[in-house]
Amino acid sequence: MENTEIKTKLDALLDSEKMGEMRGALMMLNVVDIAEYMDELENDRMLKVYRILPKDISADVFAYLSPEQQHKLMTLIGDSETARLIDDMFVDDAVDFLEELPANLVRRLLANVSDEQRGNINRFLKYPDNSAGSIMTAEFCEFHEGVTAADAMKYLKKNSIDKETIYTLYVLDPTRRLIGTLPLRRLILAEPGQNVERLMETSFVCVNTLDDQEAVAQIVRKYDLISVPVVDKEGRMVGIVTADDIMDVIQKEATEDIEKMNALLPSEDEYIKTAPVKLARNRLPWLLFMMFSSILTETIIQGYESQLSIAFAACIPMLMGTGGNCGSQSSTLAIRGLALGEISPRDALRVLWKEFRVSAIVSVVLAILSFGIQLFVFSRTVPEAITISCAMLCTVVLSKCIGCILPLLANKLRLDPAIMAAPLITTIVDVCSLLILVGFAGFV
Amino acid sequence: MENTEIKTKLDALLDSEKMGEMRGALMMLNVVDIAEYMDELENDRMLKVYRILPKDISADVFAYLSPEQQHKLMTLIGDSETARLIDDMFVDDAVDFLEELPANLVRRLLANVSDEQRGNINRFLKYPDNSAGSIMTAEFCEFHEGVTAADAMKYLKKNSIDKETIYTLYVLDPTRRLIGTLPLRRLILAEPGQNVERLMETSFVCVNTLDDQEAVAQIVRKYDLISVPVVDKEGRMVGIVTADDIMDVIQKEATEDIEKMNALLPSEDEYIKTAPVKLARNRLPWLLFMMFSSILTETIIQGYESQLSIAFAACIPMLMGTGGNCGSQSSTLAIRGLALGEISPRDALRVLWKEFRVSAIVSVVLAILSFGIQLFVFSRTVPEAITISCAMLCTVVLSKCIGCILPLLANKLRLDPAIMAAPLITTIVDVCSLLILVGFAGFV
Repeated sequence: MENTEIKTKLDALLDSEKMGEMRGALMMLNVVDIAEYMDELENDRMLKVYRILPKDISADVFAYLSPEQQHKLMTLIGDSETARLIDDMFVDDAVDFLEELPANLVRRLLANVSDEQRGNINRFLKYPDNSAGSIMTAEFCEFHEGVTAADAMKYLKKNSIDKETIYTLYVLDPTRRLIGTLPLRRLILAEPGQNVERLMETSFVCVNTLDDQEAVAQIVRKYDLISVPVVDKEGRMVGIVTADDIMDVIQKEATEDIEKMNALLPSEDEYIKTAPVKLARNRLPWLLFMMFSSILTETIIQGYESQLSIAFAACIPMLMGTGGNCGSQSSTLAIRGLALGEISPRDALRVLWKEFRVSAIVSVVLAILSFGIQLFVFSRTVPEAITISCAMLCTVVLSKCIGCILPLLANKLRLDPAIMAAPLITTIVDVCSLLILVGFAGFV
Repeated sequence: MENTEIKTKLDALLDSEKMGEMRGALMMLNVVDIAEYMDELENDRMLKVYRILPKDISADVFAYLSPEQQHKLMTLIGDSETARLIDDMFVDDAVDFLEELPANLVRRLLANVSDEQRGNINRFLKYPDNSAGSIMTAEFCEFHEGVTAADAMKYLKKNSIDKETIYTLYVLDPTRRLIGTLPLRRLILAEPGQNVERLMETSFVCVNTLDDQEAVAQIVRKYDLISVPVVDKEGRMVGIVTADDIMDVIQKEATEDIEKMNALLPSEDEYIKTAPVKLARNRLPWLLFMMFSSILTETIIQGYESQLSIAFAACIPMLMGTGGNCGSQSSTLAIRGLALGEISPRDALRVLWKEFRVSAIVSVVLAILSFGIQLFVFSRTVPEAITISCAMLCTVVLSKCIGCILPLLANKLRLDPAIMAAPLITTIVDVCSLLILVGFAGFV
């Protein structure tokens, strides 16, 4: 909650046990803000606030609590009341909550949930992580052919409260296959007697339950949708994914890529709430990999000791650093291009040719500059300066080409391109630039 | 367009000049797909397709064309027809289009646009880049106090076609100050005689025209909104930002951060369409900075030549690499935490203390391992191995602390934290790790 003033007022009301006023004050807030306020309370104070929430918003507030607070509240209110909350929650929120719990507890809770909701939840829990099925919800408005606009409006007035969105309606055939979508906007404009199949749009976009959530996000973003229907393998409609969930997907996928690209194992935990041991565990794998691979660079330097005069040894950090940055630039553009669907492995040759031309420009600029620096700043001999410049030239070209091609290769092999980022590329480029340098140094 | 089959069919119809059939086929597609198809056509073929589009969707299709294709089409159809398109477009789309054009052309085009639309566009063009004002649209549904639910529905039936969204309605007082929001869902359930101010929600969320688009995105995401009202300094409502624009903001801001974090100047151009010279220009600044700063490392190595036996010289890449990765891990978490609003500069001490504990664990593991590697793989003497281990220990702790604190400092100084990422951190850590190594090497 941004507003600490509101928080202070609520705290005061809670302290003085003025629960009537407290309830009035809470009703002025958005459910997200109520949940945020409750997130910071201790057990008994949180329970007090929960008890005065009107029944019709308590499930909503519960859905927005942090997982830790949800667990605490669940223990406080007991199984049967938790089951009632699960019954009132949208399936996707209920599934998010249940996924964090041990299997036996989930079974115990679901025993008290209505048959329909339990069926939905069990079906949803089976979808693979990060699939469209795992983020969709089952509460959409469906109609069948032959229903009139007036009937549809009447149905909406009766049932809209239980649906995640009523702004797009779905028309199904008798086998539950999706045959059209109907924006509420169009229904409002319609003549009361018109049938829904005369009003619906048949050029709709839909996704499959097993589609990756990143692909779903790209479709929703491309077509500016507020929800997208999800169909199963047989083409039967089973749910919708709404724009608010897509925003979370876009955010989460970007965070995951950023973490992978910077030598971290991705984690969904909030940084400030994660224990140091767990943070260390997410960081060590890449650092260990890096340390073992540096045995290689160390061996090379040791082996070519005689060729590496101080002039060449001193410029190793510069060469490696430049190579690492060049490779990381190219791999970043390739990884992001793949993630946003702007390039695909089919474009490999085009990308490689482009990177080659870019690296030609960049490497000539850097080689000339490094020649000047070696000659005038460090007073190297001309052959030494030329050697270093040539090593720079080759390092830049090679690292740019490696940087762009490895993410495309990873994608082709169905690996995540984001792992082909700075940490790995730098390690590879380090070895290459060293070999290039000792190669050229052999000529001097 | 995913489906090349559809594309082939359209091409065939276009080649055989069957324009009636072509029109029928196009009508089966979403406007986004029509625009995508037209994006790949040459001038005269594109114009042919444009000419057969029904008038009511041509502005929509135009809004989805790529900027290059928009310019070409504009030249083909001339000023007055372009002005008609601008009149029919939503203000935010029109502004996006006009922002790419030279000022004199914009003036010429706007001369033919209706007064109301011109006024809106001119006002919108003045908002700073990346502000809420620059991404909002003016087409929202507003009502004043005293309007009944029945009147509101009647108004919607008449005017909904020109509004970007009708799913949230806005209630304004006579001075145009926003006093409540009314979800269409609630209006549909209402008794016809009820006044809108009895139905509206008064605990609404709104943003200011000058708020940064990233902050707007965080609010929309937090409250799961499909649109958020935008008010000016005086609290008067001037527009709305819709979820589809927010999805683009989240995506763009993440891409921008990823690019900045990987030694690239951020660019909105699609990689594959950007010329090599321009790509090179976006990459050279960081590479040059890196090259000049490596003069420092080179000077240190040169100056301490006598202390740097081959044992120490050979392990420089390993030390620098590990330090760079450690710093990049910490800075990544800090930068992402700041971007998502999970941490703020106020948390500096907590973050530093956490990173210190993480680095204690990580550095001990790495120091012990590197001791073993130096002793057994490279047969160094015990004092040498101890020196390298100690240098490793200090490098890891220092680089993790620098990595987490610099982004927070940047944020405090109102700079973009994303620039305090791997490239800069690595450069700083390179120098530090070298100084640590020569410091310890002096003791041997």
